[in-house]
Amino acid sequence: MSGTVEATYWIETAFPLEQAAATMAGEQSTGTFVRVPGETDALREAHAARVVSIEELGDAERPSLPGSGLPKTGDGRRRTARVTLSWPVHNFGPSLPNLLATVAGNLSELKAFSGLKLVDLTLPPVFLDRYQGPQFGVAGTRELAGVDDRPMIGTIVKPSVGLSPEATAEQVRTLLDAGVDFVKDDELQADGPACPFDARISAVMRVINEHAERTGKKVMFAANLTGDIDEMLARHDHVLREGGTCVMASMNSIGLPAMKVLRAHSQLPIHGHRNGWGMLGRSPAIGMSFVAYQKLWRLAGIDHTHVNGIDNKFCEENESVIASARECLTPMFDPPHPGCEVMPVFSSGQSARQVPATYAALGSTDLIFAAGGGIMAHPGGPAAGVRALRQAWDAAVAGVDLADAASQAPELRDALSAFAA
Amino acid sequence: MSGTVEATYWIETAFPLEQAAATMAGEQSTGTFVRVPGETDALREAHAARVVSIEELGDAERPSLPGSGLPKTGDGRRRTARVTLSWPVHNFGPSLPNLLATVAGNLSELKAFSGLKLVDLTLPPVFLDRYQGPQFGVAGTRELAGVDDRPMIGTIVKPSVGLSPEATAEQVRTLLDAGVDFVKDDELQADGPACPFDARISAVMRVINEHAERTGKKVMFAANLTGDIDEMLARHDHVLREGGTCVMASMNSIGLPAMKVLRAHSQLPIHGHRNGWGMLGRSPAIGMSFVAYQKLWRLAGIDHTHVNGIDNKFCEENESVIASARECLTPMFDPPHPGCEVMPVFSSGQSARQVPATYAALGSTDLIFAAGGGIMAHPGGPAAGVRALRQAWDAAVAGVDLADAASQAPELRDALSAFAA
Repeated sequence: MSGTVEATYWIETAFPLEQAAATMAGEQSTGTFVRVPGETDALREAHAARVVSIEELGDAERPSLPGSGLPKTGDGRRRTARVTLSWPVHNFGPSLPNLLATVAGNLSELKAFSGLKLVDLTLPPVFLDRYQGPQFGVAGTRELAGVDDRPMIGTIVKPSVGLSPEATAEQVRTLLDAGVDFVKDDELQADGPACPFDARISAVMRVINEHAERTGKKVMFAANLTGDIDEMLARHDHVLREGGTCVMASMNSIGLPAMKVLRAHSQLPIHGHRNGWGMLGRSPAIGMSFVAYQKLWRLAGIDHTHVNGIDNKFCEENESVIASARECLTPMFDPPHPGCEVMPVFSSGQSARQVPATYAALGSTDLIFAAGGGIMAHPGGPAAGVRALRQAWDAAVAGVDLADAASQAPELRDALSAFAA
Repeated sequence: MSGTVEATYWIETAFPLEQAAATMAGEQSTGTFVRVPGETDALREAHAARVVSIEELGDAERPSLPGSGLPKTGDGRRRTARVTLSWPVHNFGPSLPNLLATVAGNLSELKAFSGLKLVDLTLPPVFLDRYQGPQFGVAGTRELAGVDDRPMIGTIVKPSVGLSPEATAEQVRTLLDAGVDFVKDDELQADGPACPFDARISAVMRVINEHAERTGKKVMFAANLTGDIDEMLARHDHVLREGGTCVMASMNSIGLPAMKVLRAHSQLPIHGHRNGWGMLGRSPAIGMSFVAYQKLWRLAGIDHTHVNGIDNKFCEENESVIASARECLTPMFDPPHPGCEVMPVFSSGQSARQVPATYAALGSTDLIFAAGGGIMAHPGGPAAGVRALRQAWDAAVAGVDLADAASQAPELRDALSAFAA
């Protein structure tokens, strides 16, 4: 089996960088602390992880994480670096679960490091022999939603929990009347006893189907089917029966093998919700970047994923948001293999105000732009909220300054004064 | 549906603690930044998460994590605290994936916090309606392994990768001859092209079965079947067919829904490998403690799990190792419900030297004590390595000082000098 996996890490260590990188490579391939019988040089040569590159960055003033060790002799410096390792894929085969044990297993606990974070991952196309990648991606999602020349304007059903199926459907009706392209369930509500999945989807799809018959526009509803595997497959079938066009699953809640099963079964785009990613991604010193993370899930079969938003209400920096979004639209594999691009979903405190910076940074309208309060709390009502977002995107794409556009567009003007920075 | 879920967090925030805790509760239940139509007080009352307790701890000198916000007015202090929240289980139902989205979802990214870690979790017994818990646990594992009155002495096949099925079986033969009770595959090797699972297990089980016929002792081999769901079920069946008595899966690699499927299918104990847990658990400021984490996996059906070891080669502190191990043996539910206890597995740089402290801290021999170099690198050979470990445990249980015991036990004496601290 040919091909190599490359993984890039940010590391922080008091050990010489070459030694630290060799420790990482050894731990995750042929290494053990004591050489054992049967371990020949040829065997090491064929299976050892290799250190591809070490790029030294600045020194750290203090250890970012506790529990690290110090070299017996050293120069007293604590260095940071970007280190790339590679593994022959024949060590583990094209298996995402086993890839994880290799590139994101025991490494984080090694004593030589006071910081170690997986920041990027490059996989060989042989993984496509086993994983299907996105079924719909950008083009398929646009076709199902009937939106081809601008971002899809999305929103969310709120409150997260407590609405009955009928009350949820009434919320959705308001959002449809407002003119959105996309509505998502909240990640906190899948099949709670007070709002069972089947009843909720039936009620919501009645409203969406009626609206589609009247207007010709079938709004996409991302039905949160997160659950155990049998539940998810049955819920998918219910969505399909009711005429729905999208399902949503919380990636961290279900794991890669369950996503693979869902992808193989699904006839609908899969909206990959990343809640919980902060546990892995928020610390600069440990865990995994979203740039690395989303590649695993794209291969497993999601069609959309969340990237937060510019000036979001959470703690993610804009630079990180944009890096994630760009990555979603960057091919993972060269032709003739599929690129597995997915649609990035911007959300969290988004309004017309963030549109110019989002477009400037991404240079594309292949995205879902989701606003909650930014639509529902518009002073002119939800329809004005949606119009304001479309006006803002039209202006951004046309290269017109937002304030100038607002002078011709009352909904945009009201949005900018209502949602001041 | 009755019952509540309680989750306890360590938090660090520049906001007043009451306000910070209320933000957590709101974000993960009925909260949104703008109140929306349909959101009545009664609905909030029935579904809101509640702040159960706030225990203030010391102040933090500086933010542990970047990206946090400051209150508009404040006293300039950055407090830390232990905060417990509760949710009515009727918000999400007894579903582990949906529980995760609630207790470990967006919280980690909230701007009000410069640190937020899930440290404990209490679940109501209604979860047992959907999850089976451990099938074998401590007693079932002991019975299968034929070890009832002392710790199971375990070891690992090394090197991690590169051995052929036959070479792996030869390693196992050496370990069986040495007298171990338990052997585990490495987490890096499941079904790599150079050592396919089926061929490896067939070769290993031939050796184990022959040894069992000769000695009456069937050594337990934890076969690493980590993979996609179809693969794992087929591999389980192969282990069973070959007379194996244990399977192993990397928990972070497969996810809770896949573990549930494996548990429902399995006729063997499931050894839950926690590699990758460092990404979630190593930072004191983000992620999840192993105390919280292992409860999810016990409910999903593991029978054993790793807790690292005293004075391990990784960066985990002894206090944390012991807290994890104790928790594995502490019932999750009161009678008449099953306690879902699982066998803790000590490993990583373990030798006879760590035995007294391990026993003193745990007060139990319900554990697997795994040593790699501690067995293979014993100056008297692997059999002497195993004898030394058993001698050390006999001494610890009898309350005899290790040095005193060594004066009567040459293997132990050699171990103590070979594996000096």
